[in-house]
Amino acid sequence: MKNSSISRRRFLQASGAAAIWIPTSARGYTSQEMRDFYANGEMSVNVSKWELDTPALCVDLDLLEGNLDKMASTMSTNGIASRPHAKTHKCPTIAHMQMDRGSVGICTAKVSEAEAMFLSGIDQILNTTGNVTPTKINRAMNLAQQCPGFIQATDSQPNARLLSEAAVAKGIIADVVVDVDPGIRRTGTPFGQSALQLAQLVDQLPGLRFRGMLCYDAAAQHVVGFQTRKAQTLERMVQATDTFNLMNASGLNTEIFSGGGTGTYNIDHDTVGMTDVQVGSYVFMDAQYMSIGGEQDAEVYSDFATSLTVMTTVLNDQYEGRATSDAGAKACTINQPWPIIKGESGMTYRSGSDEFGTILYGDDPSRNYKVGEKLEVIVSHCDPVVNLYDQMYAIRGDVVEAVWPISARGMSA
Amino acid sequence: MKNSSISRRRFLQASGAAAIWIPTSARGYTSQEMRDFYANGEMSVNVSKWELDTPALCVDLDLLEGNLDKMASTMSTNGIASRPHAKTHKCPTIAHMQMDRGSVGICTAKVSEAEAMFLSGIDQILNTTGNVTPTKINRAMNLAQQCPGFIQATDSQPNARLLSEAAVAKGIIADVVVDVDPGIRRTGTPFGQSALQLAQLVDQLPGLRFRGMLCYDAAAQHVVGFQTRKAQTLERMVQATDTFNLMNASGLNTEIFSGGGTGTYNIDHDTVGMTDVQVGSYVFMDAQYMSIGGEQDAEVYSDFATSLTVMTTVLNDQYEGRATSDAGAKACTINQPWPIIKGESGMTYRSGSDEFGTILYGDDPSRNYKVGEKLEVIVSHCDPVVNLYDQMYAIRGDVVEAVWPISARGMSA
Repeated sequence: MKNSSISRRRFLQASGAAAIWIPTSARGYTSQEMRDFYANGEMSVNVSKWELDTPALCVDLDLLEGNLDKMASTMSTNGIASRPHAKTHKCPTIAHMQMDRGSVGICTAKVSEAEAMFLSGIDQILNTTGNVTPTKINRAMNLAQQCPGFIQATDSQPNARLLSEAAVAKGIIADVVVDVDPGIRRTGTPFGQSALQLAQLVDQLPGLRFRGMLCYDAAAQHVVGFQTRKAQTLERMVQATDTFNLMNASGLNTEIFSGGGTGTYNIDHDTVGMTDVQVGSYVFMDAQYMSIGGEQDAEVYSDFATSLTVMTTVLNDQYEGRATSDAGAKACTINQPWPIIKGESGMTYRSGSDEFGTILYGDDPSRNYKVGEKLEVIVSHCDPVVNLYDQMYAIRGDVVEAVWPISARGMSA
Repeated sequence: MKNSSISRRRFLQASGAAAIWIPTSARGYTSQEMRDFYANGEMSVNVSKWELDTPALCVDLDLLEGNLDKMASTMSTNGIASRPHAKTHKCPTIAHMQMDRGSVGICTAKVSEAEAMFLSGIDQILNTTGNVTPTKINRAMNLAQQCPGFIQATDSQPNARLLSEAAVAKGIIADVVVDVDPGIRRTGTPFGQSALQLAQLVDQLPGLRFRGMLCYDAAAQHVVGFQTRKAQTLERMVQATDTFNLMNASGLNTEIFSGGGTGTYNIDHDTVGMTDVQVGSYVFMDAQYMSIGGEQDAEVYSDFATSLTVMTTVLNDQYEGRATSDAGAKACTINQPWPIIKGESGMTYRSGSDEFGTILYGDDPSRNYKVGEKLEVIVSHCDPVVNLYDQMYAIRGDVVEAVWPISARGMSA
């Protein structure tokens, strides 16, 4: 029973002596069993996270709530709102936690994601990606019809006309924001006159109501070094402010100027006119964000805690200097920096194989894993990792408190 | 109506004049609508693939069937069986097509995948990954109890003892193969005496029936250049043959010696003793396999056709030299080589953004995409891409013939 005694030690270390111990060798719960417990109101069984079948996506509730609270208080202090991006978590429970802390709404990247959020009771939704096909325009306008708090982005005049036609056909007036490109040439219309003319067209079209603009600088979020990131962001957003001012000066209703993200959450309030920040990853954090450095902590971006992990089990320990686990690319993606083993040092993790993770020991590893032992890795890039799972385990201390459906998992359409 | 006229041209080019044309501007079908059509026996509506909501995972039936037929005839000619790996397609329909063409069974990478295949009527399953926790050992033995054709791999003596205890507790004798490491130190026990002793233990344990060994050389599959790949594979597998002979000489029942894959399917029959090849990717192919080169075609590994694509829609065409589409990392993964745009030249595709694809035009692109137009990309690496989708569209010519559930999608546990 070597495995269970080691797991027991780990368990007690992490959770304190009062925790309930369920020995690994005696039990363990599949994802279906955990889902059923939760659906049937039986979470009182006090399942330890170490009893979860793996790979399992886990969120530490204390850390998650701390991240949510810190973002809410920072936004409040800075006099700007948050409109968190649900593309990160795809989880209505977390969206509700964000709304409960004063967010003005959520963002979604795809109309299917917006539909899933609306079905789960979220009624303030800004869909940041344009819908350009008849199918998707129809879906977006159906949602607008059912959800008065739904706002759709557009980035071209032909698209605005199609949206308006669809809205008129349904007998509604749909809320629209203009997507302005911050200079990365991905989506959005250019700064200045192009954006102004599109805004004016939206304002004039019979089926649409102009609500403002969004300008999301994706390229700014992972700039390494706080001062560099700040300088680049504020310089680039000057043109967004100028565009916003053009709209204002022309008499348009410019109540929304949305942009920014987790990397610039404490910078964006310095962009003149910006009304809300589309923060996403701050709820979970990940190895990519950790590596960009923060204002106080240049080494690690530690403003928010790494609440999201993948729990994995060691499958093979027979070979010198390494061990093989059950969480590979299909459980962790191949994003880099690679996942980080939580609470250990002197070892690295690779998830390059589709089905297997590799633990590589350095000269002085903090431990050596045996077959059957479990470990947690901080994920590389939270958004696509969450998108691989149907449910996440919400854990307090070491006890599973809830099983949250990731309702918008796979909703890339 | 520029969009629909261009789509019409593409449609007619690809499918011939007799095909039924449904204009893009008139209709389009969501994934839910397509699923419902199929469930209700209404595929007679003859939906064109160009009407699918995107991103959509598409498989060309003529190409898929050609791949299946070619593999079956090659195996037959070479006097070796196939035991295709379902980790690639996770789709029971394709598993049945493989069994119908004479495969001796399928492989699965995870017990949850095996459960999904069994529930869909597949009853010859070799689970190639060891199960080491009580939860998973229990699941595997439950499956063995229900499915007499289930075979579980093991790679250590302690694990074999646990499997046997669980089998005895259920009153069954479970079929087991020994996983032998080909030298990549990921899973498996080393060649030679270690493997022999494990095989002998399995043979002696009261709950287990020894069926043979597997030795999957993952590292060999993507070696560039056929002759290099062949030489490396056969050299490394000499020790697998020696190990197999040791087992034979000791009087064990060595009916299974499974290994190999798509990259070595026409090499593995030269490994003395090998009984079946665990081919996976040949059903779909992908950019990674295309790049390794084949025996006849050194440039492109063209032994099998690229039947799998992701259909995507252009969202933005406003910026010089590029366009943005709706299939990014969450629809295509970030595996490289990057996806390849089907039927076009002078342009490349990037799926590095979570939500967006980027089409980059070279000096002489074969066309320029407009907003709303659709294109297909050959996927980078088929296994993890399939794992992102709940369903795939089975397409004949340009008409959607079926909607296949990817029943084991997300089953990494």
